[in-house]
Amino acid sequence: MGINKINELEQATRKAFLYLSSTPETVRNKALLALGESIRMHQQNILEANQQDVAKSLEAGIAKPLINRLTLTPEKCERMISGLNALSQLPDPLGQVQYAKELTDGLRLYRVTCPIGVIGVIFESRPDALMQISSLCLKSGNAVLLKGGKEASETNAALYRAIMDMSRSEHIPPAWCHLLRTREDVAEILKLDNLIDMIIPRGSNSFVRFIMENSSIPVLGHADGICHVYVDEPCDLDLAVKVTVDSKAENLSVCNAAETLLVHRKIASTFLPVAAAALQAKGISLYGDEQVREMITCEPATEKDWLTEYLDAALSVKVVKDIEEAIYHINHYGSGHTDCIISSDDDHVQRFMSLVDSAGVFHNCSTRFSDGYLYGFGAEVGIATGKLHARGPMGLEGLCTYKYKLFGHGHTLGELHEGKFAMTHREIEADWS
Amino acid sequence: MGINKINELEQATRKAFLYLSSTPETVRNKALLALGESIRMHQQNILEANQQDVAKSLEAGIAKPLINRLTLTPEKCERMISGLNALSQLPDPLGQVQYAKELTDGLRLYRVTCPIGVIGVIFESRPDALMQISSLCLKSGNAVLLKGGKEASETNAALYRAIMDMSRSEHIPPAWCHLLRTREDVAEILKLDNLIDMIIPRGSNSFVRFIMENSSIPVLGHADGICHVYVDEPCDLDLAVKVTVDSKAENLSVCNAAETLLVHRKIASTFLPVAAAALQAKGISLYGDEQVREMITCEPATEKDWLTEYLDAALSVKVVKDIEEAIYHINHYGSGHTDCIISSDDDHVQRFMSLVDSAGVFHNCSTRFSDGYLYGFGAEVGIATGKLHARGPMGLEGLCTYKYKLFGHGHTLGELHEGKFAMTHREIEADWS
Repeated sequence: MGINKINELEQATRKAFLYLSSTPETVRNKALLALGESIRMHQQNILEANQQDVAKSLEAGIAKPLINRLTLTPEKCERMISGLNALSQLPDPLGQVQYAKELTDGLRLYRVTCPIGVIGVIFESRPDALMQISSLCLKSGNAVLLKGGKEASETNAALYRAIMDMSRSEHIPPAWCHLLRTREDVAEILKLDNLIDMIIPRGSNSFVRFIMENSSIPVLGHADGICHVYVDEPCDLDLAVKVTVDSKAENLSVCNAAETLLVHRKIASTFLPVAAAALQAKGISLYGDEQVREMITCEPATEKDWLTEYLDAALSVKVVKDIEEAIYHINHYGSGHTDCIISSDDDHVQRFMSLVDSAGVFHNCSTRFSDGYLYGFGAEVGIATGKLHARGPMGLEGLCTYKYKLFGHGHTLGELHEGKFAMTHREIEADWS
Repeated sequence: MGINKINELEQATRKAFLYLSSTPETVRNKALLALGESIRMHQQNILEANQQDVAKSLEAGIAKPLINRLTLTPEKCERMISGLNALSQLPDPLGQVQYAKELTDGLRLYRVTCPIGVIGVIFESRPDALMQISSLCLKSGNAVLLKGGKEASETNAALYRAIMDMSRSEHIPPAWCHLLRTREDVAEILKLDNLIDMIIPRGSNSFVRFIMENSSIPVLGHADGICHVYVDEPCDLDLAVKVTVDSKAENLSVCNAAETLLVHRKIASTFLPVAAAALQAKGISLYGDEQVREMITCEPATEKDWLTEYLDAALSVKVVKDIEEAIYHINHYGSGHTDCIISSDDDHVQRFMSLVDSAGVFHNCSTRFSDGYLYGFGAEVGIATGKLHARGPMGLEGLCTYKYKLFGHGHTLGELHEGKFAMTHREIEADWS
């Protein structure tokens, strides 16, 4: 894009964001329902476009799991539509008053939630990510620049046409949502720090890491999900085995699956043989340190294993001498995503929950519960492993910021300093209408 | 610093952060009071060290305002001590439960505030910034790396000794607070992205901008404070003049002072002569666009003026044709700090408060109220003009993040999928003790 085109894009997009940010929730919810209708109207075109993408990818010899993610079906379209309907039912994330004080007589301060502005979304093959993120942006009053993977380009274009049709019929400025198509657009998105307030990358670890390292725009998301299960002494052994197996094997390719198992040395010889049998029965390969290999048969683990997110049927296993070593190991090698302690010692649980520096610290339950829907957020933007702005599963709140609104009657600092009034900071009702 | 020294620093600092983060508030509040006592004990040394710094700066011919900021007095020391006592009285920012739900029978989720981790603070001449930020970090359970200006090096070292004495007597691991001394340390701080979670820069605009552009660590703070006053039609003219003068002239060198005055064309010929006389009586030079110069005598404004934070006795002035142009001008040229509308039209006020995309949007009151103490936060870390994590004046909250704590009884996703239980997401009490 040339400078002029960027300037045009910038102005139109900012304007559309300001329009959306000031709409009442009824407008945004009606648009979400209309978007569902528009997808239904376009469904034939969307599925045909998707078949073209799939055919091209098959020709190019792309791997089966990617093809599966790329493929849309009438059922997946129905799920998109019901997702939009559910989103329209969620409470409005905008206009929430978080702080309300009368600073002095007649000077009222409100901290009110508002959209962040313009969100850049870069995603790989899954076309449902396009609809998911753009609808979350619509609900939260943000404008959005979308850049999808090349292999889904026809599908994305068809979905985008459904979004534009809805925008026209609902009289929403179409610049609220852009689909960028050329390969150069990714590099350009990363440089648009005047236009884009936040980037959400969706895709493989190496992809997310690339985005994080190549932009000065804040990136919300996670690169690694190196989650741990620590089996403490004392604990309920059956529960420990059950939760370990679920954390690792319930789904192998997700960020909240466990990658490392830590076991207290006092319980290791009892727990490990049972756990290993249960894990191996699920097809999981184990990589253990020296002490582990004295108790069970498995491959040796190296330093690299503690830093590896397998996303596969593999688990690294280490014996630790106490809870302190477990906490140290997790804080040192982990990625701050989700870590679990299995224990029946209240003090240990409390220490672990306090000292493990991760977005999610779990007790006696599977790491797989680290998820926006399961947490009750109704919708999920992604999971953040950074500590600022949003941490852990992000709902609509992650797409919002706030501003301070101060209403006065000619109040000046000069008069405060002259003693004409004093600051009182009285709590007031959150409603200013 | 060599790699080994950095590794040592990293381990000791993380450990101290984890210690602090898990202390009850009584420990941190007692330490704040002890720090006040320690300053009193060291006061003679601190003032002597400061005299050395001041003498060196006078010799080096450093400008008067900088010398004033550098100079400590017994009164300033007393203010530091009373600031520490006040901080110890503020509510604990840690352990606040922001979200509490029973996800299903026996599976309870809590979102709980906790410290961010390790804060890097880089500040120029003011030695009181050292005490202010390190005490805010102590209160909020964060470890801190301090890098002060060369001209205050003796004073900073003396203040740091008072902090270390307190740490020893209160049995707080001394690695919670580091003072870096060499010039190279600034560049190194900016690279320590494994150790430092957030950087707070305190100093001139060019200094803050340099930090922001030279680190991949998130920076919280503001570079520019280009604040606007927009005088709308209709409005109370006396109030408009009073608030404009206060916003500009109450203090010239602060980030929340107005730098640009926008005036609705219908009111310009009445308002501008009165406002200009009042401003010029305070010694303020005006820079006006063509329309302004038809009504009052002043220097011409150029495009550059709309982008300039004078921090001085100067104000740029522009006539706008309507509120839309005012909003556009502010969003285009402003820095997102604080902007004010003077108006008696409710619809206009509502539009302005909604569409101006700034941390503070004010109605009929001075921009100078944009301040953490005046907002009622009790303590201020700084003012952020970014939109993520914290926006506007930041209190202790800006030094905190949260984590999700999930307590279960062997819950697995496998059993959820088998239908053994369903998600219920029931609101529960915030107290889990």
